[in-house]
Amino acid sequence: MKISLGAKSVVYPAPSFVVGTYDKDGRPNVATAAWCGICCSKPPCIGVSFRKATYTYGNIVEKKAFTVNVPSERYVKEVDFFGIASGRKVDKFAKAGMTPVKSTFVDAPYIAEFPFMLECKLIHTIELGLHTQFIGEIVDVKADEDIVNAEGNIDIEKVKPIILSPGLLKYFGIGQYLGKTFSIGKEL
Amino acid sequence: MKISLGAKSVVYPAPSFVVGTYDKDGRPNVATAAWCGICCSKPPCIGVSFRKATYTYGNIVEKKAFTVNVPSERYVKEVDFFGIASGRKVDKFAKAGMTPVKSTFVDAPYIAEFPFMLECKLIHTIELGLHTQFIGEIVDVKADEDIVNAEGNIDIEKVKPIILSPGLLKYFGIGQYLGKTFSIGKEL
Repeated sequence: MKISLGAKSVVYPAPSFVVGTYDKDGRPNVATAAWCGICCSKPPCIGVSFRKATYTYGNIVEKKAFTVNVPSERYVKEVDFFGIASGRKVDKFAKAGMTPVKSTFVDAPYIAEFPFMLECKLIHTIELGLHTQFIGEIVDVKADEDIVNAEGNIDIEKVKPIILSPGLLKYFGIGQYLGKTFSIGKEL
Repeated sequence: MKISLGAKSVVYPAPSFVVGTYDKDGRPNVATAAWCGICCSKPPCIGVSFRKATYTYGNIVEKKAFTVNVPSERYVKEVDFFGIASGRKVDKFAKAGMTPVKSTFVDAPYIAEFPFMLECKLIHTIELGLHTQFIGEIVDVKADEDIVNAEGNIDIEKVKPIILSPGLLKYFGIGQYLGKTFSIGKEL
């Protein structure tokens, strides 16, 4: 029997990505975002949502660029810190002991220590209410060499990404392998 | 050392949600989507992306409504099947032995057997290229009573959601608990 919980923003899994931007003076900032997701394959695009009150919001509007940094579970404390502190008051890279690197194709920094990242060029801004969704075209993906397999795909079991549960506010790792996409459903 | 993989649509984790719609004749359909994510807290909104060629695309345009059904890992074969078959040719509910239920607030069906779902009213349509992003306002969340805790939150460890790894095309379960959001980062 299903019960009604009202209008809520909850899905499982939600991601915990870290969005990198420069401010107008070129200072690097990072902010954790759960309201994110790929939204197109061709051109590859990703949506990331921020409140207007955040430092990142102004940086994206200014620079029309951002990076999406995918963390490993060993960085869960840093990811959480990047979601608590504000770049207006704190140099989050310095405080967390992480290294900002300038992207190749867009005017935004990425985190050297995280396993992989997407360089994104802002192409759409959608005002929704409390959050604004920024859609970025993914112009390049960069990954640590040792997590990329022979086919050029990133090994999720080497990345060990972080899963967020909104509402409950808990982080989890990934678990057991369940099967192959576009394959196990053929039995039906 | 990071290497460049080019412009690709890849992030970890990606979800594997099942989107429910009615066609113009009122026949229920479901389709699996990985290009999804919450994009606003107030009003609560979620984006789901589909190619124009899909049956679901036409249904959402027609009905301006959809549901997002969150699966448990025990339904991984059904989820994969819902992403392979087309509602133009197959009654996917019947084939998978699942039960369509009419939503309370929107003109779209949900899957009785899945642990929880979002009823969504279409509010924005964003043409991106191969995919179109449909943004739905979440007007209600319905969950099985036995997965909702005393605070009204859905227990992710009871849901056992499915994580997709694009590129690799593998499904995973969720793993170990890593810590509390807006909490463990305070140590830094």
